[in-house]
Amino acid sequence: MDRNSVGIVTPQKFTFGSLEDPMVLESGRTLGPVEIVYETYGQPNADRSNAILICHALSGNHHAAGYHDPHDPQTGWWDTMIGPGKAFDTNRYWMICANIIGGCKGSTGPVSIDPATGKPYGLTFPIVTIGDMVEAQKRLIDHLGITRLYSIAGGSMGGFQVLEWALRYPQMVRSAMCIASAARLSAQAIAFNSVGRSAITRDPEWREGAYDGKGPEHGLATARMVGHITYLSEMLLDTKFGRRLQSANRLSYNFTTEFAIEGYLDHKGSAFTQRFDANSYLYITKAMDYFDISRSYGPLKEAFVSVTARCLFVSYSSDWLFPTSQTKEMVRALLSNGKPVSFIEIDSPYGHDAFLVEVEKLSRIVSGFLSGVPQEVAA
Amino acid sequence: MDRNSVGIVTPQKFTFGSLEDPMVLESGRTLGPVEIVYETYGQPNADRSNAILICHALSGNHHAAGYHDPHDPQTGWWDTMIGPGKAFDTNRYWMICANIIGGCKGSTGPVSIDPATGKPYGLTFPIVTIGDMVEAQKRLIDHLGITRLYSIAGGSMGGFQVLEWALRYPQMVRSAMCIASAARLSAQAIAFNSVGRSAITRDPEWREGAYDGKGPEHGLATARMVGHITYLSEMLLDTKFGRRLQSANRLSYNFTTEFAIEGYLDHKGSAFTQRFDANSYLYITKAMDYFDISRSYGPLKEAFVSVTARCLFVSYSSDWLFPTSQTKEMVRALLSNGKPVSFIEIDSPYGHDAFLVEVEKLSRIVSGFLSGVPQEVAA
Repeated sequence: MDRNSVGIVTPQKFTFGSLEDPMVLESGRTLGPVEIVYETYGQPNADRSNAILICHALSGNHHAAGYHDPHDPQTGWWDTMIGPGKAFDTNRYWMICANIIGGCKGSTGPVSIDPATGKPYGLTFPIVTIGDMVEAQKRLIDHLGITRLYSIAGGSMGGFQVLEWALRYPQMVRSAMCIASAARLSAQAIAFNSVGRSAITRDPEWREGAYDGKGPEHGLATARMVGHITYLSEMLLDTKFGRRLQSANRLSYNFTTEFAIEGYLDHKGSAFTQRFDANSYLYITKAMDYFDISRSYGPLKEAFVSVTARCLFVSYSSDWLFPTSQTKEMVRALLSNGKPVSFIEIDSPYGHDAFLVEVEKLSRIVSGFLSGVPQEVAA
Repeated sequence: MDRNSVGIVTPQKFTFGSLEDPMVLESGRTLGPVEIVYETYGQPNADRSNAILICHALSGNHHAAGYHDPHDPQTGWWDTMIGPGKAFDTNRYWMICANIIGGCKGSTGPVSIDPATGKPYGLTFPIVTIGDMVEAQKRLIDHLGITRLYSIAGGSMGGFQVLEWALRYPQMVRSAMCIASAARLSAQAIAFNSVGRSAITRDPEWREGAYDGKGPEHGLATARMVGHITYLSEMLLDTKFGRRLQSANRLSYNFTTEFAIEGYLDHKGSAFTQRFDANSYLYITKAMDYFDISRSYGPLKEAFVSVTARCLFVSYSSDWLFPTSQTKEMVRALLSNGKPVSFIEIDSPYGHDAFLVEVEKLSRIVSGFLSGVPQEVAA
């Protein structure tokens, strides 16, 4: 185990609401009780002013750092960023990461048991939005006795949550880091999500969402394969795989998985079905498609008037799913409102995945940004 | 019916080879008899020196121009380019277009009856390559009494056939037009093809290729949806669909097809299953993945030494499936061999689909290029 690891962590649970007193969602439908599974790393200071909330992306979860099991080398998804002496320095900050509602890793979602029926929600689970996810996180943050977050950070869909927090609860967010994200998905990104959903719902094993057991594995694998293509840049695919064959150096002249890129995608697709729920994939991608700052808060320039957080935006040069142009649009809107905003496009061949991979470059930026967040005057 | 239409056309058939005297494929396997369905437009001149072969792309077929049925307004796929007074002027040229082997529109492919078993080939059909497709076309061209093609043209996978013709039978090709194509697929393009194949072969209705009747419609629809995203530019998707909803102006908060781009892809996917065979999709995409000039003929510069055709290359500024950089690579290789080569990148928002859509721009280029092909000295 790495010396700078947060070590063994144990997920915690927080429940709010009930059947009788549920959470009211953006759709008007209700959800309750709501369970949130989360992890914390580092320690709160006396006035709990050193808390940083990490928001995860589509296939992420609350396990952002450390280990669950000393015998399992698998670390949290941003372990390289979170720990003693790391960018999110747990010697200074109290880090929090929660599984989103609609997810499948412990927080209430379509795999949870509906208390009204005693059966899994499946497709009776209500559509949740990014706003609903943030609303649930807000309850957790209140529960933890935090009145103002020192910072909030997330990449991709995590960036959506960051933006939503900064707009919905400006007074609670001292600084915000929106990484490889956008104010809304492009039509092309919606298109890729919709193909993924279509692959799942066209799979006969999906059974209108009421599957039992393995479910629509083929559809989910296909959805994930499509996703993985969009997470990497064309350049990286050419460098890493090119036209290389998996094993033989002669063409097989049959339909076995043959090119290295085929083997990679096939593996990624199949592995995903072992760790993710297909209905959850539908709900989360739908939440992504629905997210649109302008629909909720008006044109970007107007929307950002209310932002008080010191903001950092990071994009990656080869990210074509969340291209730099979309980040610049937000930066411009903040600047035109006279808001303090930092922006950097990191040069990287890793495409959208860079926010998980290009740790060294991002670490320097994040730790610098965090150290520059103005201190609050003690009350 | 448009005055410049070639009018009603009737597909013709040509058969060569037999069980006893089959065609030997690149894989070493054999195929026979081989049936080729094709159409011609315009008339041959006395020495049949005015023939132009059109090569179709993945989902195309031999029906490139005119109508099959006076009551059906559906014209051939390049009808806007082929006809009296059009770019491929049927008052001057004798146009030929044949369905590729491996296809599903009449030429021998996986849906054909295997004479050895009396049943459809299905997955017992041998893998065919672009070289094999060209070999079959060569037999047709010989059969039609053509010793030298005035020109040959094709977009996308049609461009692969154009290149293969120019390399395999240089003496038979006076001029060649390679449009929105490449010397090989990129890793990303192979990745998209492989997701499409995976969606088909993971569909339980595929039954290892031995389906009867409708077959793996869901898998094929998913494959086509993925394809369609790659055929259009991000800019076009944003302009044409953006985040517009299909019908309602309020979010549905359910999983119905909601965004206009979703409806478009869903329709394209479903419609495709009505007109295309899933096994054929596997064979043709595999042929595309296998195509690689350098594998067959060595590094591009060496490969192109043997080319004698006057060449025209056309790419489209927003085509990200067959980007201009891949065309330029071929143009450079020809230029460095001192070959006469014309190249233009057409500015277009239509992405890869531009070769089917941006007719006006392409027409001027094609007709100009054809009129400039040097006359042969009469024997």
